Amino acid sequence: MSRVTAVVLGATSYTGIELLRLLRYHPGVTITAVSSQSYAGKPLPEVFPAMRDIVDLPLLSPEDAQGVKADCVFSCLPHAVSAGILSPWIDAGARVVDLSADFRLTDAECYAQWYKTEHPRPSLLDRAVYGLPEHNRAAIIETQIVANPGCYPTSILLPLIPLLNAQAVDLRAPIIADSKSGVSGAGRSLKLVSHFVEAHENLSAYGIGRKHRHVSEIDQELSSAAGSPMRITFSPHLVPLNRGILSTIYFRAPRGTEACRRLLLDTYKNEPFVRVNGDGTLPAVRNVAHTNYCDISVAGDSDEGPTIAVCVIDNLLKGASGQALQNMNIMFGFEETTGLLR
Amino acid sequence: MSRVTAVVLGATSYTGIELLRLLRYHPGVTITAVSSQSYAGKPLPEVFPAMRDIVDLPLLSPEDAQGVKADCVFSCLPHAVSAGILSPWIDAGARVVDLSADFRLTDAECYAQWYKTEHPRPSLLDRAVYGLPEHNRAAIIETQIVANPGCYPTSILLPLIPLLNAQAVDLRAPIIADSKSGVSGAGRSLKLVSHFVEAHENLSAYGIGRKHRHVSEIDQELSSAAGSPMRITFSPHLVPLNRGILSTIYFRAPRGTEACRRLLLDTYKNEPFVRVNGDGTLPAVRNVAHTNYCDISVAGDSDEGPTIAVCVIDNLLKGASGQALQNMNIMFGFEETTGLLR
Amino acid sequence: MSRVTAVVLGATSYTGIELLRLLRYHPGVTITAVSSQSYAGKPLPEVFPAMRDIVDLPLLSPEDAQGVKADCVFSCLPHAVSAGILSPWIDAGARVVDLSADFRLTDAECYAQWYKTEHPRPSLLDRAVYGLPEHNRAAIIETQIVANPGCYPTSILLPLIPLLNAQAVDLRAPIIADSKSGVSGAGRSLKLVSHFVEAHENLSAYGIGRKHRHVSEIDQELSSAAGSPMRITFSPHLVPLNRGILSTIYFRAPRGTEACRRLLLDTYKNEPFVRVNGDGTLPAVRNVAHTNYCDISVAGDSDEGPTIAVCVIDNLLKGASGQALQNMNIMFGFEETTGLLR
Amino acid sequence: MSRVTAVVLGATSYTGIELLRLLRYHPGVTITAVSSQSYAGKPLPEVFPAMRDIVDLPLLSPEDAQGVKADCVFSCLPHAVSAGILSPWIDAGARVVDLSADFRLTDAECYAQWYKTEHPRPSLLDRAVYGLPEHNRAAIIETQIVANPGCYPTSILLPLIPLLNAQAVDLRAPIIADSKSGVSGAGRSLKLVSHFVEAHENLSAYGIGRKHRHVSEIDQELSSAAGSPMRITFSPHLVPLNRGILSTIYFRAPRGTEACRRLLLDTYKNEPFVRVNGDGTLPAVRNVAHTNYCDISVAGDSDEGPTIAVCVIDNLLKGASGQALQNMNIMFGFEETTGLLR
Repeated sequence: MSRVTAVVLGATSYTGIELLRLLRYHPGVTITAVSSQSYAGKPLPEVFPAMRDIVDLPLLSPEDAQGVKADCVFSCLPHAVSAGILSPWIDAGARVVDLSADFRLTDAECYAQWYKTEHPRPSLLDRAVYGLPEHNRAAIIETQIVANPGCYPTSILLPLIPLLNAQAVDLRAPIIADSKSGVSGAGRSLKLVSHFVEAHENLSAYGIGRKHRHVSEIDQELSSAAGSPMRITFSPHLVPLNRGILSTIYFRAPRGTEACRRLLLDTYKNEPFVRVNGDGTLPAVRNVAHTNYCDISVAGDSDEGPTIAVCVIDNLLKGASGQALQNMNIMFGFEETTGLLR
Repeated sequence: MSRVTAVVLGATSYTGIELLRLLRYHPGVTITAVSSQSYAGKPLPEVFPAMRDIVDLPLLSPEDAQGVKADCVFSCLPHAVSAGILSPWIDAGARVVDLSADFRLTDAECYAQWYKTEHPRPSLLDRAVYGLPEHNRAAIIETQIVANPGCYPTSILLPLIPLLNAQAVDLRAPIIADSKSGVSGAGRSLKLVSHFVEAHENLSAYGIGRKHRHVSEIDQELSSAAGSPMRITFSPHLVPLNRGILSTIYFRAPRGTEACRRLLLDTYKNEPFVRVNGDGTLPAVRNVAHTNYCDISVAGDSDEGPTIAVCVIDNLLKGASGQALQNMNIMFGFEETTGLLR
Repeated sequence: MSRVTAVVLGATSYTGIELLRLLRYHPGVTITAVSSQSYAGKPLPEVFPAMRDIVDLPLLSPEDAQGVKADCVFSCLPHAVSAGILSPWIDAGARVVDLSADFRLTDAECYAQWYKTEHPRPSLLDRAVYGLPEHNRAAIIETQIVANPGCYPTSILLPLIPLLNAQAVDLRAPIIADSKSGVSGAGRSLKLVSHFVEAHENLSAYGIGRKHRHVSEIDQELSSAAGSPMRITFSPHLVPLNRGILSTIYFRAPRGTEACRRLLLDTYKNEPFVRVNGDGTLPAVRNVAHTNYCDISVAGDSDEGPTIAVCVIDNLLKGASGQALQNMNIMFGFEETTGLLR
Repeated sequence: MSRVTAVVLGATSYTGIELLRLLRYHPGVTITAVSSQSYAGKPLPEVFPAMRDIVDLPLLSPEDAQGVKADCVFSCLPHAVSAGILSPWIDAGARVVDLSADFRLTDAECYAQWYKTEHPRPSLLDRAVYGLPEHNRAAIIETQIVANPGCYPTSILLPLIPLLNAQAVDLRAPIIADSKSGVSGAGRSLKLVSHFVEAHENLSAYGIGRKHRHVSEIDQELSSAAGSPMRITFSPHLVPLNRGILSTIYFRAPRGTEACRRLLLDTYKNEPFVRVNGDGTLPAVRNVAHTNYCDISVAGDSDEGPTIAVCVIDNLLKGASGQALQNMNIMFGFEETTGLLR
């Protein structure tokens, strides 16, 4: 197979850097250009000294990058910007993996409502596939546009989709996802909430009461799995670590906790990146940090109380760049784990 | 008023040291003895250099400490040990504040079931008062024995008790407390889970499915407030910070979120250590760290979804030693905030 | 004694908030105004929810604050701004404690060279006293203007001044201070270096080779103690904790390590906030965090190698706001430890 | 080339786990056995759930492991134990990489003095090669026994050896290494100093005054490079991060700072894992964390003061397991970077 040429937009974000490391050591990929709005003109290692001798390319402006042909374009740009910058490549037939939210929602009105702006290219929405490989593999193979899932949604959908598919969840009872994320999830831009002294030795809730944008994406995918409209109660929290998400998910399971566990074990038994704990051992972020794994446990109260699924991922890998590469592997016919085992 | 003499048992635990700092600068207290099983014979500053020039007393064995008279004895000993060591003082009429679980459960059988051991002095149980000052102040004034509440229970009971008292919670729907705690809650004894390299950059769930001992204490106090038997779904998590607990509590509130918020605002409007956010601003551990404050917010989804209370405390202060001193202030007629404003 | 009225400028900095907590519970002080350039008009607790019920004052603009009379004005403003804003109070006879660098250097030219700007009020420089209480107490009592020392200089000067005074250091050999600081030392303004994800799990050197501004202040005070011009080799490092500085100081001591230790023990034996370890036990930041203590040890290689002093302080207390209050206590005749024991 | 079979002893240490991850994805290695004294009999993933689906082998006792043949045996065992357990393999002709200190010192008496025990196999000492690939590559190719360098020594020797080789350091002036290490350097065994609550928000010095065992190893290798006996002043510090060492090294360089920088640039220009900053940009641990890189900068005061080299490595990779694999690659004729680029 000839090498896949790849362009990475928004290369100086945390997801961008993580993706570059993965692509750089992927045996079938050549990185042909990297872009950055803020640092255009500088060599990448001047902004990220860690990348010296690894990726020494100069950072192009997004506009200059648009002049570079590629088989696959990865966008780590902010939403609302991403779809616009990607457009020329899409129109020219390149395949794209968009890590922003721009292609995740199938409904442009819903996008406008949650993201407070008109969608830049609504006509492309029905051509995009939601890139959760474990559940959309066949469509990902065929599509030109992958909407790479959000980090929180990945940690909530992987445990819930198989249960909803199997009608193992009582849809009349509330489904609650209490999620805890490391600070890299808030990105690299400067905000008081990400200031070391504010975040360290701190722990806080935010966006509680269906205020976080990922609600729209979670609702859409859960509804699709359940076959009827669903609403999640989603409570994100900020936790003082760099990487990792742990979601604790509460729901009513009429068939019981053990049945849910067996359903998940069975669904994921051949998946390379999802590990279900058969014995109820509870997951921990450190077991998946710096990997593309997703670990899931099902625990439960009793027949009376809710069943509880606990799910952990590395938000920058299975929750972003690792999953993006997994999608690319599927799109271009590589072994799905290529470049992701570490 | 003559000075209150105080003995602190288990002085080299994290709660013990925190309590000593508070007592040392309390204007009406003299610390007469400090004990430690492991370090008996050494001066306290040899074990905790931080205490040099603050509390320079020698550490007595618990047995030797029993020879020291005191108006008030604080125990930071482990459960099952605590009640036994405290017994001679209790029999001699001293007042005690027990930070262990030994006097928290009113039912010795329930204690035996959760703590896997017979209660050392079951006959004392009905003389103890559960030391949550905001709700049991009158009884604390009179009692000889205060059972100082657990850290998790404090963070769950303070938001829920007023709502249950006012019948504002639907008791048929599940009540879920998703709690996150810093590592000092696991104590100073050496365990792999508290090893820096295991806990740092980690985030994990444990004891999910009503396996944590605090469930018994929470159930008891919630049932008492509700006037009927209740069962909490309690999910503790370990978070990489030293101090602090954040509990996110989900329940069905037929009168709505705003009514719950007003109830809490009204209940706690004159309390010196409970701050309810009137505007829905979400609490953060750093706002209460190193203080005796408890901050509470009520947020909510909508009439359809659950109402959510978020509560933060410093587990070593309002969740342990600060509350212990607050109880002592009440017992001995000091202004309740004495020595606790900082 | 009537209560001292105090104004705090730059109240929303980390040192400002720390100072407010101390002043609020000082038995002889009333805070009459707090200012903030960025947040003027808001109540302080809106910016720092932690301060609710503690200091509920509105934030004035620095200009509006200038209309408020006070016995003592504390400035936590940036250098070059501070002296200008303080001027009207100084001219009106108020006493000031300036936590910025504006009054630390006695020489306006030196100031201009290191701070890249002309000094706003050079004529005031010879009226200011360098506020290191352990060595300048007599002058602090008399002065109208205290230049509160920098955090790094405090951690270097306290061990070295007594040794230089006693001619126990070979001035021909290099004096090296390898200092490590927590992130709050870099302030609350948004910078990539203080971004959680950049600082956490990181450790870095900066300003090595006499590039840090504190070099000027350290050189000045060391030279004064030695009686001849001195140059420090100063290497600051950024370490992932909120609070604390540890300085490891290397020098040649012809009389030996033990003589140096005895000199320090003797110098500080009656000082309430400096603890010298007589037995060579090495200091740790956690022993002084959240206190006004400075802990010092002297260790050494042998007669051949350098003698090593290790010094720890909390950069926000003994390195800033605690020392500022200590200075105020001296200036206004309070017991020096008032409000500082905790 | 046929695959190299490898045994890893002490597999449940932090260096053991790190090594297993590297070996598992090395294209030319098969792991044939893993051992653990404490956990013998359990599958590795039961002790380290992170390793599930990665290395699922059962943990053998060291004695049982001795029955397994291998081309290469890696030991992550403690010193004094390691050489003994390795002996049968050595006698049978297997090649070994020992990550303990047992083969680092060429002199058994020196070993006995620093490690307080007789060397278990002194006769093997002169057959071992100190495995610093950048300086001993030729000998490593030939040797049967590699003594893998300590983490602190690696961070000190890589900057100093080229300068000593070139006689660019004044040997009469002191050479001071002020080193800061993350907590994983203290290993996985339970100690109060590694308890999360003790290490977090802390910063401390230890072993100052030539008390740390790595002094012996550093002195030996520096003396060898200088061609005359040398003594380092070595001050280790414990810093609250998991991984990483930063060493700040002070020495007198008669030819000046710039000459030292050019010497290092020149020495390492073709080395795959050593990056010298040509422009004086200072290194940071995060740039090398989770990689086998060593980053070095040279900064300096002026002609009067000391020259300063700053060096960072990941203590578990270039300071331990990464370097061990680099040595294995050299010994078995693999490309030196195989399995180490990430």
